Amino acid sequence: MSELSPYLESVAKQIDHLIDRYFVDKAGELNKASAHLLAAGGKRLRPAVVLLSADAVKHGSSGEILHAALALEVTHTFTLIHDDIMDDDSLRRGVQTVHTKWDMPTGILAGDVLYARAFEHLCLVNAKDDAKIMAVTMLARACADICEGQHMDMSFEHRTDVSEGEYLEMVRKKTGVLYAAAAGIGAVLAGGNAVQVKALYNFGLNTGIAFQIQDDLIDLLTPAEKSGKDRASDLREGKQTLIMIKAREKGLDLLKYRRELSCDDIEAAIRELTDAGVIDEVKKIAAGLVADSDRHISLLPPSKERQLLMDIGEFFVTRSY
Amino acid sequence: MSELSPYLESVAKQIDHLIDRYFVDKAGELNKASAHLLAAGGKRLRPAVVLLSADAVKHGSSGEILHAALALEVTHTFTLIHDDIMDDDSLRRGVQTVHTKWDMPTGILAGDVLYARAFEHLCLVNAKDDAKIMAVTMLARACADICEGQHMDMSFEHRTDVSEGEYLEMVRKKTGVLYAAAAGIGAVLAGGNAVQVKALYNFGLNTGIAFQIQDDLIDLLTPAEKSGKDRASDLREGKQTLIMIKAREKGLDLLKYRRELSCDDIEAAIRELTDAGVIDEVKKIAAGLVADSDRHISLLPPSKERQLLMDIGEFFVTRSY
Repeated sequence: MSELSPYLESVAKQIDHLIDRYFVDKAGELNKASAHLLAAGGKRLRPAVVLLSADAVKHGSSGEILHAALALEVTHTFTLIHDDIMDDDSLRRGVQTVHTKWDMPTGILAGDVLYARAFEHLCLVNAKDDAKIMAVTMLARACADICEGQHMDMSFEHRTDVSEGEYLEMVRKKTGVLYAAAAGIGAVLAGGNAVQVKALYNFGLNTGIAFQIQDDLIDLLTPAEKSGKDRASDLREGKQTLIMIKAREKGLDLLKYRRELSCDDIEAAIRELTDAGVIDEVKKIAAGLVADSDRHISLLPPSKERQLLMDIGEFFVTRSY
Repeated sequence: MSELSPYLESVAKQIDHLIDRYFVDKAGELNKASAHLLAAGGKRLRPAVVLLSADAVKHGSSGEILHAALALEVTHTFTLIHDDIMDDDSLRRGVQTVHTKWDMPTGILAGDVLYARAFEHLCLVNAKDDAKIMAVTMLARACADICEGQHMDMSFEHRTDVSEGEYLEMVRKKTGVLYAAAAGIGAVLAGGNAVQVKALYNFGLNTGIAFQIQDDLIDLLTPAEKSGKDRASDLREGKQTLIMIKAREKGLDLLKYRRELSCDDIEAAIRELTDAGVIDEVKKIAAGLVADSDRHISLLPPSKERQLLMDIGEFFVTRSY
C-alpha cells in the first residue's frame, strides 16, 4: 500500500486544481456558497476511483476524463450540503456547513447548482458519445439511489428494530452506489466492455459499503482527537448501525447508552461489544466485502492501477480515521 | 389560435400518461412525495415547446423524443418543490406542497430525485448520441441558471431599488432559460443545425421572459376567483416586479400598498398604474419580447408547428390566468 498515499495525494492535487479553476473565485454569492464545501478539502477518494478504474481498463486513458473525476466529487459534495440541511449539522470538514454560514435557501440552491455542474462536467470528458450517455445515466441513477438511501437512513431514526438487510440496503444506496458509479463511469468512459464495466461497478459498490461500515467502527473506536469527529455519537443517538444491529442479535442492549457518555462509558461499551464478539463480526463483514470486491476486478489484467484499487479497498477497512 | 388548445390538451394527455407510467404508483414514501406535485396537473407547456420545436425542425420527429418532453416537465417540477421550501408556500396547483404534506427533508429529497430522473429520461430519447450530450449540457446549464435566478429573486426581497435590467436578468434565469432549453433541446434532438437550435433557443428565452411578465400582470389584474391565486400578493409584499419598477421610474410610490388590501385598494392601485401608463408600458415590453421571439423562428420553414409555437408566445401574453 506504500504507493497508495502518493497516488491519492497526486489525484487530490489535480482535483483541487480543477475546483479552483471552475468553482472558486467565481463571482456571486451563490457561487461562493457552492464552492465553500468543495474547496474545504477532503480525500478526493471518488475521483481517485474514477481515474484508477479508467486506467485499469485502458492504460493512460484517465488523463482524458479528469472532468468525470471532478463530476463525482461535485456530486458527493452536493449530497453533503443537502444532508447537512436535513440533519441540521453545523460543522463539516472543519468548516461551517453551507446552510449555517449562509441560510437554508442558499444551502438548497448551492447544492442544486453543484448537481447541475456535475452533469455539465461529465459531458466535457473526451470520450465516445455513447459512453458519455451511459455515464450520464449511471450518475443520474446513483443520485436517485442516494436520495433513497438518505431517506431510509432518516426513517431509521424512529426505529429500534432495523434488520441487517435493511441496514445494508440503506448503506448500499447512500454510500455504495456513488463509489459504484465512480468505478463504472471510469470504466465505461475508458471504453470498457460490459463485463469490465460491471466488474468495476461491483467493485465500487462493495468497497463503498465497506467504507461506511468502517466509518461506523471509527465512530466508536477512534478517539475524537484523532478522528476529528464527536466520538460515539452513533451510540449516544441510538443510531441503527451494523454494530447496534449485531449487538441486538446477541441480546445486548446498547440503547442504554443513549445519553451523555463519559470516556469510561465508551470504554465499557467497547468492552461489552468486544467480549460478545460484535466488533470482530462487524470487521469481518467489512473485510468480506473488500475480498468480494477484489474478486470482481481480478478478471481485469494485472496492472499497477488494479493493485491500487485493491489497496483502496484495503485502506477503507483498515483506516482508523 | 384555435388549434393551440387541442394541441396543448393532446400533449398534456401524453405527458400525464408518461407521468403515470414512470412516477405514480411507484412503491415507497419518497417516490410518492416525488410524484405528488408532478401528478397534480399543470398545462405541460414546456413539454409542448420541446415537441413543437422538434417538429418545426423535422416534421414527425417529436414522437421519438417524448422522454425529453417529460424531462423538461420533471425539471420544472423539481424547481417548484425546492422553491416552495424556500418560500415556505403551503399550496401549489391546488394541492399541499411536498414539504408541508411530508416534511422539509422529504421535500429536498423529492426534488433531488426528480432532478436525477430528468437527466435519466433525457438519455432515453431516440436520437443521435452527440445530440443527446448537447441536450444534457443544455439542461444542466439551465438548471444552474434557474438556481441563480431564484437566488436573485430572493435577494430582491430585501431591496426597493431593483432596476429593470436586474429584474429582466432575474426573470431570464428563473423562467426564460428553461423555456429556452425546452426549445433548444427539441431542436437539437431533432437534428437541427446550429442556426436552427439557436433560433429556437432564443425563441424560448424571449417567450419565457414574456410569460413571467404576464404572470406579474395577472397577479394584479385578474380576480382571485379566475386566477386561483391570491390577488395582488406582489403589491402587498412590495415585490420588485416590472410593474413596481416602472411605477417607481414614473415617481409613483407603490410601497404604500405594502399592507392588507381591500378590493377598493386594488382598484385604486390599478387606476393609478393605468393612468400613469405603467400597465400599457409593461404590456408593451411583453408583446415586444413575443414579437422578437417570432422573428427568431421566422427563419424556419413555415409549418403548422412553427405557427403553433408563435401561438404559444401570443397565448403567453394574452392569457388572463
